[in-house]
Amino acid sequence: MSRPKPVEYASASDEVRAIFDDIKTVKQIDDPNNFWKYLANDPAALRRTWESIKEVMSPGALDVKTKEMIYLAVSITNNCGYCIASHTAAAQKAGMTQEQFGELLSVIGMANQTNRLVNGLRVPIDAAFDQ
Amino acid sequence: MSRPKPVEYASASDEVRAIFDDIKTVKQIDDPNNFWKYLANDPAALRRTWESIKEVMSPGALDVKTKEMIYLAVSITNNCGYCIASHTAAAQKAGMTQEQFGELLSVIGMANQTNRLVNGLRVPIDAAFDQ
Amino acid sequence: MSRPKPVEYASASDEVRAIFDDIKTVKQIDDPNNFWKYLANDPAALRRTWESIKEVMSPGALDVKTKEMIYLAVSITNNCGYCIASHTAAAQKAGMTQEQFGELLSVIGMANQTNRLVNGLRVPIDAAFDQ
Amino acid sequence: MSRPKPVEYASASDEVRAIFDDIKTVKQIDDPNNFWKYLANDPAALRRTWESIKEVMSPGALDVKTKEMIYLAVSITNNCGYCIASHTAAAQKAGMTQEQFGELLSVIGMANQTNRLVNGLRVPIDAAFDQ
Amino acid sequence: MSRPKPVEYASASDEVRAIFDDIKTVKQIDDPNNFWKYLANDPAALRRTWESIKEVMSPGALDVKTKEMIYLAVSITNNCGYCIASHTAAAQKAGMTQEQFGELLSVIGMANQTNRLVNGLRVPIDAAFDQ
Amino acid sequence: MSRPKPVEYASASDEVRAIFDDIKTVKQIDDPNNFWKYLANDPAALRRTWESIKEVMSPGALDVKTKEMIYLAVSITNNCGYCIASHTAAAQKAGMTQEQFGELLSVIGMANQTNRLVNGLRVPIDAAFDQ
Repeated sequence: MSRPKPVEYASASDEVRAIFDDIKTVKQIDDPNNFWKYLANDPAALRRTWESIKEVMSPGALDVKTKEMIYLAVSITNNCGYCIASHTAAAQKAGMTQEQFGELLSVIGMANQTNRLVNGLRVPIDAAFDQ
Repeated sequence: MSRPKPVEYASASDEVRAIFDDIKTVKQIDDPNNFWKYLANDPAALRRTWESIKEVMSPGALDVKTKEMIYLAVSITNNCGYCIASHTAAAQKAGMTQEQFGELLSVIGMANQTNRLVNGLRVPIDAAFDQ
Repeated sequence: MSRPKPVEYASASDEVRAIFDDIKTVKQIDDPNNFWKYLANDPAALRRTWESIKEVMSPGALDVKTKEMIYLAVSITNNCGYCIASHTAAAQKAGMTQEQFGELLSVIGMANQTNRLVNGLRVPIDAAFDQ
Repeated sequence: MSRPKPVEYASASDEVRAIFDDIKTVKQIDDPNNFWKYLANDPAALRRTWESIKEVMSPGALDVKTKEMIYLAVSITNNCGYCIASHTAAAQKAGMTQEQFGELLSVIGMANQTNRLVNGLRVPIDAAFDQ
Repeated sequence: MSRPKPVEYASASDEVRAIFDDIKTVKQIDDPNNFWKYLANDPAALRRTWESIKEVMSPGALDVKTKEMIYLAVSITNNCGYCIASHTAAAQKAGMTQEQFGELLSVIGMANQTNRLVNGLRVPIDAAFDQ
Repeated sequence: MSRPKPVEYASASDEVRAIFDDIKTVKQIDDPNNFWKYLANDPAALRRTWESIKEVMSPGALDVKTKEMIYLAVSITNNCGYCIASHTAAAQKAGMTQEQFGELLSVIGMANQTNRLVNGLRVPIDAAFDQ
């Protein structure tokens, strides 16, 4: 067994293929990305994760570009290489400019810095923020 | 020495007081938040951090509300209690609605989840994302 | 000096070789894994870490498969690529099935997600959990 | 708005109340825990998270006690105070003994330690683990 | 069972008491800190952790103050409140001045910031660093 | 756009080239490292980050070797591969011996371990540490 292997469309079960089809339609791509192909080893996890992602990442009170930049901010903080690559592409596709990417990175950097300054200084929460 | 103590405006040095004045003007508040008061024990760090934050968080290619939500996404991922409290307030002040906060949280949650699915599945980066 | 290099059995000191021999016996392998070979640059750290791992990972109130899955859950959360690879193999060797690996991943994903929902919502601990 | 407030059963919408009822039935408790009450500010997130948790945490190829210990391992690694408190209680309810908790903690500690030794030593993955 | 409780010296087993005595002697304190009292619920973990800490934190190629500052840097990065409090005190006891604490914090902050800039920019390792 | 590309000296703007020149002078190197070349896509971020790093990492109350070891401790904890490679080299250049590197790693490992033991045991802060 060892290292997980991808499930390709051609050899997928009917259950997995139906989800792959929905991914292709919603994302308007010809082939699901590697993430979905690897996750397909557990069809229940594939279905559950795809249904949640589809709901969470569709436009709502926040637009898709903003959501993708938030996704990227988390992935950069956690250092998930695959997620950084895929969500940089997704944010760009949704309209993120090079200049916006630069500002996004700077905010992520400052937040990671000041989070630790706060930890080290043991700063108590201002009463105004805690109501 | 032990636990860091805040530097209050009334007893601050001229150097620190000048930075506190700038913070009050730029942020339109009557008193710097606890973070700045604690950081003021190291005046060089206070100045450097404030100058960077002021530059990074001012409106640019991204608006202030988006920047504050990104700051919050990082702080929630890192579980910095003070930062979560202060940047939730800042994002709300910049216009984040309750519904937007809900969607922000959902994206943060999904990203933290799928980051680990990717890690565990050792998913290789799609060629299209790596160019 | 720069990048750490592995210490191979053939060129190891007597002190290191004795620990390598114990690793080979306890783990029933022909050659220590790369982790031990790199750690062997500091013989005291090699001895201390091996003695602790041997004690902690042997069967006790928890069986080896459960321990390896917990080790893997931490390594996936921290995104340690080497550790994910080696402890996936170790958990499989101890009996983890493909289906159990899928459920393990799903639990890790949910925990990483809800950890952040809790952080962002600043949920106070229920009295029943804090006694 | 500021700090999120809990949604209590008595004042919940019909949609939220139906989910609270399901939580009470499945978990055999008289009142949903604070996590669900705070998450209920976003009914769609409440529904989605509860449906996922219910599916992921029910007994399957892994038993409930093992799943709760894995949840706890992630929460301890991420230092989510609420999650540590609630999932320690849940694991105990599912049968985790004091001795098993001690061994769980020791494995979590060793994994967090060796994850960093591996990072610092830049250990390459053994060929046997990467197939 | 629920929340772990401390083991006090007066009610400790002989095995635990002997370790508590060694802690008191080595650290020159009248009573072990809370960490040791809580860890004492698992005497094997208490012994193993104390023996490792004693060996790792004693003066060697690095002096105690430097070691305590490194311990603090990790604890601040991970946001472990107890560890930040106890190792700030330990570093101060070992000679860390207020000015050194300020510089320590600034380095921790910069490292946490640039770590994420590097992640987001996907910077390849310079050949000179990888030999 | 997609994956960030480096800005080479020969094709850099005057603004970026002036900063590259300062980096080369201060660090006494012939060519800026990849980090600076990638960051140069956002000249304001390049300037701000370089000015902060230069100030924070210059000798002060702490010497350069100690600062580099602290930087490395954070980078190893966060698993930033590039940062581990570059700051291991920088610490070695500043005088870190192989033996000191071994002790540094051991302290980082112990801190990451005990941080989680503390989290899991929910250890309350000793009164003496919280004043």
